[in-house]
Amino acid sequence: MNKNPEITLTFGVLNEASAEESRVAITPESAARLLKVGIQPAVETDAGLKAGFQNADFETAGVKVLPKSEILSKSDIVGYIGLPDAKTISAQKKGSFAIGLFNSLLNKDIAGQFEGAQVTALDINLLPRKLSKAQSMDVMTSQASVAGYKAVLLAANEYPGFFPMMTTAAGTIKPASVLILGAGIAGLQAIGTAKRLGAITTAYDVRPASKEEVLSLGAKFLDLASFGGPDLSAGQGEGGYARQLTAEEMAAQQAAVDKAAAQFDIIIATAQVPGRKPPVLLTKAGVDGLKRGSVIIDVAASSLGGNVEGSKPEKTVLTPNGVKIIGAPNLPSSAPKTASNLLARNISDIVSHFVSEGKLVVKAGDELEVLAISGKKQEVK
Amino acid sequence: MNKNPEITLTFGVLNEASAEESRVAITPESAARLLKVGIQPAVETDAGLKAGFQNADFETAGVKVLPKSEILSKSDIVGYIGLPDAKTISAQKKGSFAIGLFNSLLNKDIAGQFEGAQVTALDINLLPRKLSKAQSMDVMTSQASVAGYKAVLLAANEYPGFFPMMTTAAGTIKPASVLILGAGIAGLQAIGTAKRLGAITTAYDVRPASKEEVLSLGAKFLDLASFGGPDLSAGQGEGGYARQLTAEEMAAQQAAVDKAAAQFDIIIATAQVPGRKPPVLLTKAGVDGLKRGSVIIDVAASSLGGNVEGSKPEKTVLTPNGVKIIGAPNLPSSAPKTASNLLARNISDIVSHFVSEGKLVVKAGDELEVLAISGKKQEVK
Repeated sequence: MNKNPEITLTFGVLNEASAEESRVAITPESAARLLKVGIQPAVETDAGLKAGFQNADFETAGVKVLPKSEILSKSDIVGYIGLPDAKTISAQKKGSFAIGLFNSLLNKDIAGQFEGAQVTALDINLLPRKLSKAQSMDVMTSQASVAGYKAVLLAANEYPGFFPMMTTAAGTIKPASVLILGAGIAGLQAIGTAKRLGAITTAYDVRPASKEEVLSLGAKFLDLASFGGPDLSAGQGEGGYARQLTAEEMAAQQAAVDKAAAQFDIIIATAQVPGRKPPVLLTKAGVDGLKRGSVIIDVAASSLGGNVEGSKPEKTVLTPNGVKIIGAPNLPSSAPKTASNLLARNISDIVSHFVSEGKLVVKAGDELEVLAISGKKQEVK
Repeated sequence: MNKNPEITLTFGVLNEASAEESRVAITPESAARLLKVGIQPAVETDAGLKAGFQNADFETAGVKVLPKSEILSKSDIVGYIGLPDAKTISAQKKGSFAIGLFNSLLNKDIAGQFEGAQVTALDINLLPRKLSKAQSMDVMTSQASVAGYKAVLLAANEYPGFFPMMTTAAGTIKPASVLILGAGIAGLQAIGTAKRLGAITTAYDVRPASKEEVLSLGAKFLDLASFGGPDLSAGQGEGGYARQLTAEEMAAQQAAVDKAAAQFDIIIATAQVPGRKPPVLLTKAGVDGLKRGSVIIDVAASSLGGNVEGSKPEKTVLTPNGVKIIGAPNLPSSAPKTASNLLARNISDIVSHFVSEGKLVVKAGDELEVLAISGKKQEVK
């Protein structure tokens, strides 16, 4: 094995643990990746505890465990999950970098805050997701996978019946039927998990191209035509994306989804769009048509609304017809060890990308230059 | 289809719903089985709500929905889950039957209470489990299956990592490793569920014959010899049961299990013995050796102790070394729809067994005569 290069930079991570956040933006494993490119990793004391990493685990991996003030004063780049407060930003050293899920599209003031503190901020939400080399940096993808897996476990735990078919001496219990709405990363992972657990699994997505992916996982694709839905197969737009539907087609499509939903025991809605209001995939009419005891998981539940009318983030709503709607926007944080492992790998890959001759550089024309929302083309050290 | 025979008997079920009990001893489906043998089913108002059955569902199935006092005054046989209080017993009509999980082996006073009320009590806990015709009546088996399934879901939901292996652009996440202690009905169902979810699954049971069953489900059987355990393979007793081990062998076996446990992420202990103190399968030394973040589910947790030292029924204990011990003795009630479906079928099969020429009869010499703990050979109507 090659010896690690000379250390010229420090990457620090703070303790973001709160009631809703259990993840940490560095792990002992991601630390090794950083050391390999000449970056000294550092972590705030106890920052990994909720994700299952102890201070000693970090120390063994060569990570410096330090109080918050030292992380901020010593780091050339600070890794965040959510947006830090203004006080934290201004405590970073001048000319340093910040990387995290800053949602700068939703909040235009953020860039100015970093700019004012002379910090170059890299917003992971701006990662060009179609770029092949960015796949290993794609936090949205890795965290959506965790969300899809946990959404199904949460549903199976709440559902009063069994997911798999069960054959006993006293007869057979039918398997549960699960409908996954949205067949993006979270939806595909939910399909895989529901099928593993033995449920009859069906999925739907407005993008006609997703049908192939759903079928390839062994799930059924919801046939809206049998529920009075419009025929959309002829109208696929470029690149597998849906063409713009007419208002009439969209209404007919929604009515058909709402009608079809009534035959399922569990509905998992997964169309989370970072920085935008999530699309409604199941209306109140759809919820009202469900059987008593049905369980809905809305992965996109937010203060702006979710995929399911009536969902509330971090709340379980029991409808008058006995349906549980669980708003679960923070599922990655409920599997914090795996989520942190993936997230920390993604972040270390992004950071490594910007290391050039022992310095951090965002070069003009670099494919990932778009991540920088402040201090572009700035150079430290 | 044959027309149902003339109705000569009434079978009634009360609302047992409490904080810890969500099941109901009759379902619309089991009602149909009772009607076929000339029994009118009846259920207390709202008794099925927590299990997902509404009063209207019962009415549609031909079940009379009545207040508690009428259930007790009209029923020739009352179906219970747990033991009713003395007041309820004495409100049954004289000469009627009671059936339920009465645990009469643990509480010798129970028989007298029923006797005093002139009620013939049938204790399902006394079912001869090796009797082939009793398989469809075996509540312990059906509920243990539900417990095994839910134990794994609970563990997967609490565990901070993934059960399945996960391959991403940023690398691979290892699958979780699960150890199932006790390979009875609950243990075998837990093995199946953990394997479905993609975990590396290993099991152990002191009965050497269980090894074949574990291997046939595709799980590994824990090899105690590699952890300094005694060689027990030569000493199998009659009928697949373990021979009596010497005190020294037992201590060596326990020490090896405790040592082996340290390599697993999740431990599910399933050796629940109705009416007896559960055997200890993992001692404090074993718990102390586990990795931070490990999750233990003790299905046998009870006020008498459980399979795992330190477990508490209905509580999550977090040990100083960061291990969660979850005491979960009431798991069937957490999947109340499936559990009730199975339990109600079992109970309706037992009740049907005792119907003879339009009457309920416990005949001397009947294979299931042993269920009657009071008023033996009594006859109603």
